[in-house]
Amino acid sequence: MTQLAIGIDIGGTKVAGGLVDEEGQVLERMRRDTPHRSTSPAVVEDTIVEVVDELLGRAGGAEIVGVGIGAAGFVAADRATVVFAPHLSWRQEPLRDALAARVPGPVTVDNDANAAAWAEYRFGAARGESHLMMITLGTGIGGGIVVNGRVERGRHGMAGEYGHMQVVPNGVRCECGNRGCWEQYASGNALVREARALLLARSPIVEELKAYVGDVDNLTGPAITESAHRGDAAAVELIREIGEWLGLGIANLAAAFDPGTFVVGGGVSAAGELLLGPAREAFRRQLTGRGYRPEARIVAAQLGSEAGLIGAADLTRGEGGARSSSSV
Amino acid sequence: MTQLAIGIDIGGTKVAGGLVDEEGQVLERMRRDTPHRSTSPAVVEDTIVEVVDELLGRAGGAEIVGVGIGAAGFVAADRATVVFAPHLSWRQEPLRDALAARVPGPVTVDNDANAAAWAEYRFGAARGESHLMMITLGTGIGGGIVVNGRVERGRHGMAGEYGHMQVVPNGVRCECGNRGCWEQYASGNALVREARALLLARSPIVEELKAYVGDVDNLTGPAITESAHRGDAAAVELIREIGEWLGLGIANLAAAFDPGTFVVGGGVSAAGELLLGPAREAFRRQLTGRGYRPEARIVAAQLGSEAGLIGAADLTRGEGGARSSSSV
Repeated sequence: MTQLAIGIDIGGTKVAGGLVDEEGQVLERMRRDTPHRSTSPAVVEDTIVEVVDELLGRAGGAEIVGVGIGAAGFVAADRATVVFAPHLSWRQEPLRDALAARVPGPVTVDNDANAAAWAEYRFGAARGESHLMMITLGTGIGGGIVVNGRVERGRHGMAGEYGHMQVVPNGVRCECGNRGCWEQYASGNALVREARALLLARSPIVEELKAYVGDVDNLTGPAITESAHRGDAAAVELIREIGEWLGLGIANLAAAFDPGTFVVGGGVSAAGELLLGPAREAFRRQLTGRGYRPEARIVAAQLGSEAGLIGAADLTRGEGGARSSSSV
Repeated sequence: MTQLAIGIDIGGTKVAGGLVDEEGQVLERMRRDTPHRSTSPAVVEDTIVEVVDELLGRAGGAEIVGVGIGAAGFVAADRATVVFAPHLSWRQEPLRDALAARVPGPVTVDNDANAAAWAEYRFGAARGESHLMMITLGTGIGGGIVVNGRVERGRHGMAGEYGHMQVVPNGVRCECGNRGCWEQYASGNALVREARALLLARSPIVEELKAYVGDVDNLTGPAITESAHRGDAAAVELIREIGEWLGLGIANLAAAFDPGTFVVGGGVSAAGELLLGPAREAFRRQLTGRGYRPEARIVAAQLGSEAGLIGAADLTRGEGGARSSSSV
């Protein structure tokens, strides 16, 4: 009998769920808006249970091996508790136990970027890679590390928050409270901030971009990327700058951890080679020991926006030597 | 019968060897100067073999389980080849095989900071720690990572080179060719560079330091540390600045990897709390999610300058589940 897992990806704006098979295929999917952060944790739980129940109704009697959650927040090493989620109302929220009584099968909880990293390792751009670092470029930077077939979560479950490594002393203020965090230079927010400043200053170099988006309030990362793909030189240049910061941070991570592959996902990665080309160039310029050492690959993610739910689902099947055997 | 291992630590200036027992005790030790980098690799090998032979002569018939090398350089993931050693003449040097024919037992090769990290994990400041990052502050910064009882070497064997993470864009030039590397701000070289600039500028704030060292050519990291321990306010301030950069880099590593303990060793760590106090303060100021997450410990190394040879010796006994059983 087919064994399916349910994966749920909880972001700041959407709760996305899917029925996922052992090959990482999403057989059924559904979405709900994330309840506003001013609501109580129970409301978010209700939303998750709704999504799970709907998916169960579509499972056609398949065995459900578990429910995996990927959440945009700091998840404790016990993989039961969301310690802190900036876009949700969760603070020390015992999510696993709260859900365990309300959905079938075991519940696993992980950080959303860890889940995406796992999906790319199992089914995507980094199959077979022993040392993977995933970088998700959205409004900020998310990170997940997979080493020798296991998610590396760190001592307290919080590894992979490399978006908050400082790359510029006394630099741009970050929502985390610090200054100069990498995600203030290499992210969708950074891209929009820079473009917006040029538009508001009525800079002549962004005339084409202005014509494309119309009002400055329509300015988004995807709009800038689309304008770049249409040949807008200023938009290409803005994305190049993000890519260069991306490559610099990747060189820092390579110095510290020496992975074999960096997978770049998240919304900003839709810019493709306009982003990754400059990132690779900056990485090679900055890598210490270049010429003497093998260089990591920098590749685009393959699973798109569903990586989080696919990985969350698959993580219910275990990691490393502890994976549950398949029964086809 | 007692089983002993031989550990050899090869640095830019000294080759240090020791006979090490299963508890990490150094029973016999000896040193030679490192042959100058202009000599051929064979000369360094001859020196290593001399040290091993001398130690074997003092082993009193104990069983020798292997010879472990810790080398100041990039060691490939095969743990046989030194890919690049800035202070030695080695480039793609097949050190393990070259030595295997000339010394008894299996030979293992590792980066010197990996060996030191292993020693602190097994016998020193980080016993029982599941996620350890070692930082050795000497002329530069060395690094070694131990996760769940194994050295984490990365995909190509070169993890732990965090001294070359960029912390200041367009910053101080580093010997590696880049600018702004962490080790240009938190190391013995950085400490001496800053003090030297003040002395050469005849700054009044370093009068006490000048009186202590006499000529500027006598200025060394240890001299500055001694002057600070005697109450020299300027020397204390110079060490504080190194400590603050240390703490900032540690916060970056904590964001990315979330270890439970940072062990700070190397010559500069002789400054003790004058260094670690400011490092902890800067770390806490900079750590993203502070207040919501458990914080890593920052502690002084316990094994001093012999950590490298102790760790190199012990690594011949294996890691994780693959450790050779002891026969007392």
